[in-house]
Amino acid sequence: MAEFLSTKPYKGSRDFYPEEMRSREWMFSTMSRVVESFGFERYDAPLIEPLEIYLRKTSEEIVNQQIYSFLDRGERKVAIRPEMTPSVARMVARRFSELVKPLRWYSIPNLWRYEQPSRGRLREHWQLNCDIFGAQDEFLADIEILLLAINLLKAFGANQEHFRLKLSHRQILNQVLYELLSLPPESWLPIGRIIDKKDKITVAEFEDLLQKEGLDREQIKTLFSYLEEKEDFLERHAQWSSAHYLLRILKFLEDMGVRPYIDYDPAIVRGFDYYTGIVFEVYDRHPENRRSLFGGGRYDELTGAFSKEKVNAVGFGMGDVTLEDFLKTHGLWQTFPRKTELFMALFGEEELIVHSQKLAQKLRDHGFCVEMSLNSARLGRQFEEAHRKEIPLVLVIGSEEYKAGLVLVKDLNTGEQRRFSEEELLRYLKERQKNLK
Amino acid sequence: MAEFLSTKPYKGSRDFYPEEMRSREWMFSTMSRVVESFGFERYDAPLIEPLEIYLRKTSEEIVNQQIYSFLDRGERKVAIRPEMTPSVARMVARRFSELVKPLRWYSIPNLWRYEQPSRGRLREHWQLNCDIFGAQDEFLADIEILLLAINLLKAFGANQEHFRLKLSHRQILNQVLYELLSLPPESWLPIGRIIDKKDKITVAEFEDLLQKEGLDREQIKTLFSYLEEKEDFLERHAQWSSAHYLLRILKFLEDMGVRPYIDYDPAIVRGFDYYTGIVFEVYDRHPENRRSLFGGGRYDELTGAFSKEKVNAVGFGMGDVTLEDFLKTHGLWQTFPRKTELFMALFGEEELIVHSQKLAQKLRDHGFCVEMSLNSARLGRQFEEAHRKEIPLVLVIGSEEYKAGLVLVKDLNTGEQRRFSEEELLRYLKERQKNLK
Repeated sequence: MAEFLSTKPYKGSRDFYPEEMRSREWMFSTMSRVVESFGFERYDAPLIEPLEIYLRKTSEEIVNQQIYSFLDRGERKVAIRPEMTPSVARMVARRFSELVKPLRWYSIPNLWRYEQPSRGRLREHWQLNCDIFGAQDEFLADIEILLLAINLLKAFGANQEHFRLKLSHRQILNQVLYELLSLPPESWLPIGRIIDKKDKITVAEFEDLLQKEGLDREQIKTLFSYLEEKEDFLERHAQWSSAHYLLRILKFLEDMGVRPYIDYDPAIVRGFDYYTGIVFEVYDRHPENRRSLFGGGRYDELTGAFSKEKVNAVGFGMGDVTLEDFLKTHGLWQTFPRKTELFMALFGEEELIVHSQKLAQKLRDHGFCVEMSLNSARLGRQFEEAHRKEIPLVLVIGSEEYKAGLVLVKDLNTGEQRRFSEEELLRYLKERQKNLK
Repeated sequence: MAEFLSTKPYKGSRDFYPEEMRSREWMFSTMSRVVESFGFERYDAPLIEPLEIYLRKTSEEIVNQQIYSFLDRGERKVAIRPEMTPSVARMVARRFSELVKPLRWYSIPNLWRYEQPSRGRLREHWQLNCDIFGAQDEFLADIEILLLAINLLKAFGANQEHFRLKLSHRQILNQVLYELLSLPPESWLPIGRIIDKKDKITVAEFEDLLQKEGLDREQIKTLFSYLEEKEDFLERHAQWSSAHYLLRILKFLEDMGVRPYIDYDPAIVRGFDYYTGIVFEVYDRHPENRRSLFGGGRYDELTGAFSKEKVNAVGFGMGDVTLEDFLKTHGLWQTFPRKTELFMALFGEEELIVHSQKLAQKLRDHGFCVEMSLNSARLGRQFEEAHRKEIPLVLVIGSEEYKAGLVLVKDLNTGEQRRFSEEELLRYLKERQKNLK
């Protein structure tokens, strides 16, 4: 006898049994509802892409250590997508001239990265991707993306006690490094990465890393004033268009009444190297889970790998695993009962069973979900099955009911049972459905 | 300057631009609505599985020539799923004892096979998988799966002019081969495969293949009587439980009024080697597209790779590519306009823009989809954009309207324009929405 195979899912991935799937569908449909209310349209791209589309803009860590890539049977280098952005950049580049701009596009793809599974990190996850391409006025597009990010979390029941959107602008940092610290562009990236780590290390460690990168005391002091004086620093440098721009964003968000959700945080850099304007990360405020939930920003050069056309773009990606952790941490996660409301029990002869099946079909045609018993033998067992499946109403057509053109309905919650004609039954069920809403 | 990368999707896969995505969502939501009306619950499994789960029951053609398999970075042999059944068998085996039977489960996974792309065959496709596990009465479960398959196509607008469900039973064939032809079990599989080809070859070729398999004239004659006398043959062998069973199924379906959708076709064998009871294939009846749309059957031994528990199962898989071809062939394919109904044009100063954004947010909170202009400069261009995006209503708040607490609404279809207070606007939009339904 062969050994049995493991029934566990592949490491870092999840099975979704029906009760888990109901929560996932709630999550995804909430996402869709909110983003569609902003006029976003859904798209999708293939799960497998040529490896080369990830080699230009995707972070080195992903490409070298995390991507699932292999040779297909035709010797093509392909990859399972670790992120959606290169795919959507490819799609936008393909048809940009014929599409009516701006595009507001979203997708909820599953993505794969070879990671050591841990809290908030799995190998397979889903990610809501929202992007605006080709806006006439980039300021308005940036505002909209920030409002959308906040509205999404609010739609899941979260408020400013639960999360904060930390906002910055990559050009301000560049200007600090270039104009105030007189550093050449090639040193911006390593210093950006050090700043990105700031909140996870001590001040001494932070200064140490900057010194190793060649910064002197005066430069470090200037960098600290940028990082710690925040809006005051921006006001002092309002002649920079980037500082002016960010102050204008903050003012607009204040006028919109959402400023309590926003922290201006100059230390937000974002790991990806392709951001060119605003960048943001949304943080959980729970003391035991203070970490980034998701983030995004402006990345105007992304279609450059596919065409010479310049397409401005701003967007974000929100993963299901971190969102689920966040919602559970704050008691906002939801579970749902089975959708099926009607269980048709069966009784005896084939003629009655055919009749019951026909009634079930009529009810389905009227939009009701009817689960047929697959057990015509013992009626007691059938009621027990309906009860264990948490289906509230059981229908039975015994030979008496059949002769009289009736159907018996038993409510398992109240114990009440009544006989209806088919017409009365439909009226009763429609009334009941209305009351449940 | 680097060369531009191709913007084409990977061979045999598809991009779904928003207009295509709307049709796909219609297809998937129609599937969900119908199967949920039968009490089916949705599940999902990871896209990647250990390769070994495909080595026992999946067809050799798939495993040897079509599966996307590779070593992961931890040297594990894994595969992108080419079919869903091994995954669901694994999930069922994992929790079978604690789940309330019978299970009615469905999923719409994407699946990958390395194929030469052609009409109806792509490398990436989606497939509705419906299965009933652990039915107390297998007859009732078989009936339900057949009714469900027919109802699904009817929900897309198809009728008996468009398709036919060809039904058979594997045990009848086995009994013909064993009792009437006295053939040993090891020859059943090759002969089954020859029968499966019958409709694609000439009678002479068919006889020739059977002779090569060692059948004599008498045996071939008997096989022909099985294949061609159909119900008459079953009646003559009604002492066989399988023949009796199939006659009972046909009678039940006749009583249900769906017999016109069913052909009893003894030549239906199904490529997969794991079917143990009824088998069926749904065929397109269009003269230019006479081929199998999808199929399924009873396969009681599938969880055997994972546990010693015997789980009876019946189900089918319906692919999106063949379904789309079928619906297009018969003029049943549907396309949909954009969902967004409201376009908020913008005018001048930031104060007005903030005000317009706030109104947009209020409308969204009431369930409306509002697309904001991202162009506060030229009003004419904004109307043009709304028109090209086929959004029927444009809202504008100019400085006059702002002072008066009003909003201008222009209907691009009728040219009509009116001024409303916010309250009046909400009433108007709700009334309009009701009339559109």
